Amino acid sequence: MKGVRIRTNERVDSLYHLGRRIIQKKDGFRFAMDAVLLAHFPRYGKHCRVLDLGTGTAVMPLLMAEEAAYVEALEIDSDMAGMAARSVLLNDMAGKIRVRRGDYREIRSLVKPESFDVVMANPPYGGVSDGPLAKGARAGARQEVTATLLDVVRAARFALRFGGKFAMVHRPARLAEIFSALSAHQLVPKRMRFVEPRRGKPANLVLIEAVQGGAAGGLVMLPTLRVYGEEGTYTPELLEIYGKTEGRVEKE
Amino acid sequence: MKGVRIRTNERVDSLYHLGRRIIQKKDGFRFAMDAVLLAHFPRYGKHCRVLDLGTGTAVMPLLMAEEAAYVEALEIDSDMAGMAARSVLLNDMAGKIRVRRGDYREIRSLVKPESFDVVMANPPYGGVSDGPLAKGARAGARQEVTATLLDVVRAARFALRFGGKFAMVHRPARLAEIFSALSAHQLVPKRMRFVEPRRGKPANLVLIEAVQGGAAGGLVMLPTLRVYGEEGTYTPELLEIYGKTEGRVEKE
Repeated sequence: MKGVRIRTNERVDSLYHLGRRIIQKKDGFRFAMDAVLLAHFPRYGKHCRVLDLGTGTAVMPLLMAEEAAYVEALEIDSDMAGMAARSVLLNDMAGKIRVRRGDYREIRSLVKPESFDVVMANPPYGGVSDGPLAKGARAGARQEVTATLLDVVRAARFALRFGGKFAMVHRPARLAEIFSALSAHQLVPKRMRFVEPRRGKPANLVLIEAVQGGAAGGLVMLPTLRVYGEEGTYTPELLEIYGKTEGRVEKE
Repeated sequence: MKGVRIRTNERVDSLYHLGRRIIQKKDGFRFAMDAVLLAHFPRYGKHCRVLDLGTGTAVMPLLMAEEAAYVEALEIDSDMAGMAARSVLLNDMAGKIRVRRGDYREIRSLVKPESFDVVMANPPYGGVSDGPLAKGARAGARQEVTATLLDVVRAARFALRFGGKFAMVHRPARLAEIFSALSAHQLVPKRMRFVEPRRGKPANLVLIEAVQGGAAGGLVMLPTLRVYGEEGTYTPELLEIYGKTEGRVEKE
């Protein structure tokens, strides 16, 4: 679409998905494999209202919007939210995706309670104590500077209708805390998939879908997803998911 | 060892481990892969006091006793406990393994509080509602007729010293309940390994080690263990663990 301004420190990348493109910083945070995997993890429906908590450059909405009725994308950083909004215009998707600048710790002032069918989040992974703070926007995305695991789960709980689904990607190292946070908010894990870089390496990502108000038990495990095969190329399982984006994205 | 009586409905099987043998019922429950995997999962030490909750035929103590100082093996079923005790005699291991008939729901009357370094359990997997009750001794082992997940975790908590390890094998489908039960008893998951039958199949077993009084977070994932490779034979990873038992055991 004409008239969308691209700044000198920005670039436009292909999402390899229905011809869509995304505006990203040349030297800042760019989306990675985790976002692509999570975008295609939840089960949506044509009438689904979806909320993305901490959307960044809106990569997930841009990858899955055609699978749902409406996507609302919250982003605390005004710079990122601006890029996300321009990417939505660039793809002529303003009728489907709405980007809003907002802090999900203040979710009560942003959305109506229990008004979404699916909430997704690719939140910061590490605790602040995990290492020295990264600098700039990257710090916000990689470490829990602006929000904690509990904040994102609490926001999801508020926004989700009864029976709605919360989908998140996170680090397996924090699984006990994740389960504890979900449980404290009546979110019952129902689908889970671990992602391993290659054979013999432990999982470094976990995709979780929890149902608001679900009955205990009955967690469905999906087969572990291995990223690279023996020859160092993507596995068929990974390519199957990436097939939905018609190509490759940057490595995490 | 001479003088150990084998009944007509029993048989003596090799454990393929240091020449050890085990007495099992000809037509009853026999140990399976899950017990072998769990026996070799926890990290023991030469001074470790180990408690096995619901030992059955004592397969796990017989597979790992040389890695610890002492193993106490509790079994509620007197028939099973009798076989287990005779297997210990058969292997001349009465100085290392003590089999006791007892119900771990009454753990307080059986062992001193916080007196073990490692507690292990291969408890019944299913909820009673999972299906029709199996008959006979098999029912006790396969379904939660005699004890619940919470019972076994509670018993482990009572028996474990601060910093001690609780190791359990269970179904991934119940992971949320497992984490919840552990958390309620100050047991923090620190190591976890999923077991998948083969590529493209979801995990049907999970090995978990939790530390009593551990700090939150820092769960170490081990690479997913696949049982069968592309050719239908055991994978190198599985054979590495089975190497400790010098051969094969029955499929689960």
